[in-house]
Amino acid sequence: MHCEFTLSETEFEISREIYKREVPLLREYLLNAQFELVKQKNFSVIVVIAGLEGSGKARTLNKLTEWMDPRLIQTHALRSPPSDEENERPPMWRYWRKLPPKGHIAIFLGGWYTEPLKQRLGGKINHDEFTESIKRIRDFERMLLDEGVLILKYWLRFDEAQQKERIEKLESNETTSWRITSEDKIVLKRYRKIRKVFDQMLEGTHTEFAPWEVIENRSTKHRELIVGKNLLEALKKQLCQTNLTSAETLPRLYAPHVCRIGRLSELDLSQSIEKKSYKKKISALQERLGRLTKSPAFRNLSVICVFEGPDAAGKGGCIRRIAQAVDSRIMSVIPIAAPTDEEIARPYLWRFWRNLPNLGSLTVFDRSWYGRVLVERIEGFCSEKDWSRGYDEINDFELQMVSSRFLVIKFWLHISKDEQQRRFDERSKIPFKRFKLTEEDWRNRDKWESYEQAACDMFNRTSTDFAPWTIVEANDKYFARIKVLDTVCNHLEAALKGK
Amino acid sequence: MHCEFTLSETEFEISREIYKREVPLLREYLLNAQFELVKQKNFSVIVVIAGLEGSGKARTLNKLTEWMDPRLIQTHALRSPPSDEENERPPMWRYWRKLPPKGHIAIFLGGWYTEPLKQRLGGKINHDEFTESIKRIRDFERMLLDEGVLILKYWLRFDEAQQKERIEKLESNETTSWRITSEDKIVLKRYRKIRKVFDQMLEGTHTEFAPWEVIENRSTKHRELIVGKNLLEALKKQLCQTNLTSAETLPRLYAPHVCRIGRLSELDLSQSIEKKSYKKKISALQERLGRLTKSPAFRNLSVICVFEGPDAAGKGGCIRRIAQAVDSRIMSVIPIAAPTDEEIARPYLWRFWRNLPNLGSLTVFDRSWYGRVLVERIEGFCSEKDWSRGYDEINDFELQMVSSRFLVIKFWLHISKDEQQRRFDERSKIPFKRFKLTEEDWRNRDKWESYEQAACDMFNRTSTDFAPWTIVEANDKYFARIKVLDTVCNHLEAALKGK
Repeated sequence: MHCEFTLSETEFEISREIYKREVPLLREYLLNAQFELVKQKNFSVIVVIAGLEGSGKARTLNKLTEWMDPRLIQTHALRSPPSDEENERPPMWRYWRKLPPKGHIAIFLGGWYTEPLKQRLGGKINHDEFTESIKRIRDFERMLLDEGVLILKYWLRFDEAQQKERIEKLESNETTSWRITSEDKIVLKRYRKIRKVFDQMLEGTHTEFAPWEVIENRSTKHRELIVGKNLLEALKKQLCQTNLTSAETLPRLYAPHVCRIGRLSELDLSQSIEKKSYKKKISALQERLGRLTKSPAFRNLSVICVFEGPDAAGKGGCIRRIAQAVDSRIMSVIPIAAPTDEEIARPYLWRFWRNLPNLGSLTVFDRSWYGRVLVERIEGFCSEKDWSRGYDEINDFELQMVSSRFLVIKFWLHISKDEQQRRFDERSKIPFKRFKLTEEDWRNRDKWESYEQAACDMFNRTSTDFAPWTIVEANDKYFARIKVLDTVCNHLEAALKGK
Repeated sequence: MHCEFTLSETEFEISREIYKREVPLLREYLLNAQFELVKQKNFSVIVVIAGLEGSGKARTLNKLTEWMDPRLIQTHALRSPPSDEENERPPMWRYWRKLPPKGHIAIFLGGWYTEPLKQRLGGKINHDEFTESIKRIRDFERMLLDEGVLILKYWLRFDEAQQKERIEKLESNETTSWRITSEDKIVLKRYRKIRKVFDQMLEGTHTEFAPWEVIENRSTKHRELIVGKNLLEALKKQLCQTNLTSAETLPRLYAPHVCRIGRLSELDLSQSIEKKSYKKKISALQERLGRLTKSPAFRNLSVICVFEGPDAAGKGGCIRRIAQAVDSRIMSVIPIAAPTDEEIARPYLWRFWRNLPNLGSLTVFDRSWYGRVLVERIEGFCSEKDWSRGYDEINDFELQMVSSRFLVIKFWLHISKDEQQRRFDERSKIPFKRFKLTEEDWRNRDKWESYEQAACDMFNRTSTDFAPWTIVEANDKYFARIKVLDTVCNHLEAALKGK
């Protein structure tokens, strides 16, 4: 890509001549940049166009898709109200599901700004909640940038007089008067209040890593040229760099309280349960779990169980004991293996977001998003900077779930190195379990101490009050299964009581 | 995988001892088969469990997931009524979106049988429509088998006396009486009618390629063992074969009327329009299209435009002219490139089904499912048998769309071989168009005659009355664009009038 070309500075007032002269060149360069992006596939681009009703968002969007190749742009004007499938997940789910893969451009009309603004103006959230939502957006956008998404945000602004003038003009003509929406009139009536809320959002989300380009409403041509040129410059800049400019690792604005957990070596792994006692206990627990998941209040809850731990720690056995107790119609198990190519092309957490279930279900993740701070950290699949920010991103992800009728229960099944050896030996003798033993397992074993360290860091950074870790002493399988089922039942009972 | 093992014939009455002896062995072999399936990744498995309310469907499902590894099974008891996202697509969309990738097993409770049965019993469809739905299911299942999906269907049956007995038994006990649903009572009251409808479905969908295993209700143990063993046998058989047993290519039951279209060589490619006249016409057409897509009735319609034709025929230019006319918020363009790995692991049409839009939108496919009978046929990406059945599968796909408030408009843009040469030469001179020219384009050119033949076969087999092809003489770009936009407007106008 040639990077030397720059269009002239855009004047405040754009004459018809300037527009006619500049647009063809701008278009050609935009197309060029698009094709280069598809070829490089190094990053994806998200464009957000926000602003008041009547500020020209849709027109600007249409102009961009007219100028560029519509085959390489996805536009998202999300339905309002959200679909029932969207309503059963955390609010950000609808944006996560639309994230473009690397090489693609997605334009969001309003995007994740629309809902909090609407809710605040409609009095559905108070000032503090609105401030929270601003923090969440900051964190979301920083994560996007860190994950290889270039974010370009355009805020279209106009003042009270301009809105008044616009409506009067539309009203004066029969063929245009129908275009005035009821929202337009509300905007005019409550302009000051709205402007204040909008400005708070604008200032709160104008960050170093995702700054707003505020476009004052001078003329349609001016607005289009400014946005088009800015988009081109940003694309060009990024295409000529080898890596995406990444945000500095700053302390997150949104830092939940975490609890310190002791060292794994201090666990009493000798705890065990007799077979006879186990049989009695497990069937009582399974009955209890079955009953809890059948209760009417459960239909308004999503339960997520996460299983992590060394190979051969007995995750599968625990998962099976849960599956036996819960009706298969509301239960699913997501085994986390290598990501598909569609998953690799998107931010790390996308493959977990896409698997979030609807309400009234229990979902088990056999390994999970914690791979980021475990295997990816230790095997060097991502940089230190990437896994370091993972803790906060994961906390935020879980908090979003918990805030949306989800219950997140996390287990670390722990065994000693000797016990693992014993289980590996056992497996290699049983023909149909042999498949479970790969070379990777033996490699992982060499890194036992690194994994222990990573696990401890993980507990200390992600055992939050809303989604605490439960460490399970799993040298004895019976003991482990009882502890797991008991914990699930207790958490579930507490959650259902709150309903 | 060892294929020599077979469990003993299952007796009609299963004693506790036989059950206790056989289940552990069955479980081990089922697990073994599952892991082999994951390893081979040659095919996927769909299990359908159907039968009357109270026939033990859910219990059977639970037993299967208890016996097997729940991490490798997806269970689908689809919500009733469907979600609003599902309601905006053809009825089969909800099943398509749940199709498992190769190596996986999905169990559908009721599956695509539930809705037609419910509708027939509720009087919402008549006898002929019910017969149609049976045909559709046959075609769907044959396609699945042809696409590498092993389909296993279990029909759980019980007679009137058994249902009566069951309800009486439940009623007699306070702790179980709540389990009687209102549907149970309806079943008992209308048993004969229901049985007749169920039997018609059973017989109509009991095919050579997807036969039902009818399980008479003797006892829970008997039912479980029969289903488990049958599943094991079917998995084993398939795992020991190199290819999936494929259905014979029979004439489809569902054959729509198609129209014959003349040879491409007979087209008058010299047709053209003057620039001045073009400019006037195109802006009038764009205004018309804009108006049509803004009409209230459009919100209840999904428009699909398909573009096919030789390289450099001007598809992109036509698509852009449509995009300019339609609000970007309701418009999207799906460029069809090489499938992703998630797409390759599923039946061919999955990647198009997953892109079906909601209502109130216009979606352009830049190349489409017709790749099956064009590039895949000519380049040998699939066997002759595969592309041969493609015509009927495509007709069925389009008919499903058209039957669900979709409008399907298909364009073949045709240019002469000389014109293509001229355009290739031109492209190679313009720096930012050079990327559009790949070695593949030149290779395709060598196969010009094969492509013409394939295109003619395609017209003759897929130009149906519900989704006809429009062949566009595209040597003159202006002429082509006018014809395309005019056709879109005419089709759309007719469809909106019908609303």
